[in-house]
Amino acid sequence: MSILIGLPDDDMLARLAPEVEAKISDDVELAVWRVGDEPLDRRIDLLVIPYVTSYGFLAELDPAHVSVVQSQSLGYDGAADVVPDGVKFCNAVGVHEAPTAELALTLVLASQRGWPEIGNNQAAEKWERPVFPGLIGRHVLLIGVGGIGREVEARLSGFGAILTRVARTARDDERGPAHGPIHGIDELPELLPGADIVILAVPLSDETRGLVDDAFLTLLPAGALVVNVSRGPIVDTDALVEHVRSGHVRSALDVVDPEPLPAGHPLWSLPGSLISPHLGGNVQSMKDRIDPLVLEQIGHLRAGRSPINIVIGK
Amino acid sequence: MSILIGLPDDDMLARLAPEVEAKISDDVELAVWRVGDEPLDRRIDLLVIPYVTSYGFLAELDPAHVSVVQSQSLGYDGAADVVPDGVKFCNAVGVHEAPTAELALTLVLASQRGWPEIGNNQAAEKWERPVFPGLIGRHVLLIGVGGIGREVEARLSGFGAILTRVARTARDDERGPAHGPIHGIDELPELLPGADIVILAVPLSDETRGLVDDAFLTLLPAGALVVNVSRGPIVDTDALVEHVRSGHVRSALDVVDPEPLPAGHPLWSLPGSLISPHLGGNVQSMKDRIDPLVLEQIGHLRAGRSPINIVIGK
Repeated sequence: MSILIGLPDDDMLARLAPEVEAKISDDVELAVWRVGDEPLDRRIDLLVIPYVTSYGFLAELDPAHVSVVQSQSLGYDGAADVVPDGVKFCNAVGVHEAPTAELALTLVLASQRGWPEIGNNQAAEKWERPVFPGLIGRHVLLIGVGGIGREVEARLSGFGAILTRVARTARDDERGPAHGPIHGIDELPELLPGADIVILAVPLSDETRGLVDDAFLTLLPAGALVVNVSRGPIVDTDALVEHVRSGHVRSALDVVDPEPLPAGHPLWSLPGSLISPHLGGNVQSMKDRIDPLVLEQIGHLRAGRSPINIVIGK
Repeated sequence: MSILIGLPDDDMLARLAPEVEAKISDDVELAVWRVGDEPLDRRIDLLVIPYVTSYGFLAELDPAHVSVVQSQSLGYDGAADVVPDGVKFCNAVGVHEAPTAELALTLVLASQRGWPEIGNNQAAEKWERPVFPGLIGRHVLLIGVGGIGREVEARLSGFGAILTRVARTARDDERGPAHGPIHGIDELPELLPGADIVILAVPLSDETRGLVDDAFLTLLPAGALVVNVSRGPIVDTDALVEHVRSGHVRSALDVVDPEPLPAGHPLWSLPGSLISPHLGGNVQSMKDRIDPLVLEQIGHLRAGRSPINIVIGK
């Protein structure tokens, strides 16, 4: 019996078809199908959805038409509310962690070395040479030690910064004591006053929503930098705006609340505010990671196993 | 007999005076003195000059007034032509390599993740999400394996890029074969077509002047990025402008020829051209590295030894 795979576009179909034929089997059928399209004549075993960050459209899914959804994203906040009973939902583990961490380092370095000011001077064709903080010797507080946190840690290791890591609960590093302690989130009041740079790499949950609020920001030393590559609502935007406006902290945000950031919002233009528009893990090499994941899922289904990375509908 | 140290400003005097008193000796005299000031009543044993990148003013130095010049920079191109006979000149080894490499990574990451475009969109308050190349899996050609090159290598190690190193002559890595080969500069014609990113970290010399010319750039693949944190004249600016204008390459330059880059120059505004105004190693923590170097030099002189890092007037 063949299995049916729904793909979001002709591009992915063109990339995967030869791979499926060469490496997997001819009992796998590929079709381009999106939520809202006419149902196919039989149930789709695995539906790869487009690369999105909000999942409202999945409420339209009919479990009679689709068994398993494969997201192209790591975060899936909001998906559990809309994925219908009878449909499993898998997130894209291993696809975005590294490029998202890469963006975190990009934002850290750019901010510590003078952007957006240097970029604005370039646009104005002004050669001015203020002195910026830099990263060497700075205390970095990394909140989140999951996939993205690990990749941030790897990238940060060569820069001569001093890293402190925070997770939900204090614990030893599973790789051994040489990797240093992992602090619990309850220790933040003691840790924040020593942080030059905070990197947010935790998933959005009831526990982390609004984590970076006025009290959090007030505890940071003057001139500290807040970097968010996770989800916008981890930060209380109004509180952050006030602390950036006063010059107490700087921020470098790939994710904001609301998204898209509307024109006229102060975070676009406040000095010390660097914005990237939820670029996250979306780099040109993304296909080199999402395609193997989809092929792996196809292999599991064909072998009669469960797909991996099921996060909803277990 | 006490020794006399000339310092460029009251800031450095205020920082060093307590250190000299506490750790070195009271037979060391500190004074603020700059080239062009009235000569002091005896010869300055070590003159720390301001943090500059051109040395023409040293032609005015009188060997009767100053024995040894301590520069605050690593590069000293042009200094040999103006430092008078009888004066030794020391460069600042260990002060700028790490922050200059930090800036190189800043420029690499910013360019690979969409700046200056993303910065220009921020200024225009536009939330647009094009897909950029990223650094993961990219082939990086690092030209120069001296102090800055080593620090670039350390910082690059966590990013999942593929590094190829080039020095004046092919050689083994002194740390062992696990660190991979070092290619000779004569191999560039074979290496350039495979380079997604070129980082220039060689000193300026007759050999390296104009190294990046039309032939070099023509050999790069379409879309490659050229990063220069060394000295502007390593790159033939006119040739680079043509290759950036045509869209064949992108560039991210901390150093340019001429400097300062004049308003109206195409490198300010061409798409794919990122400019920083020779920020190099000048970060707020620079004093944490230059002060210990000056104190070390004072220690050597006081003990009757030669200063370290003499590069002119040996």
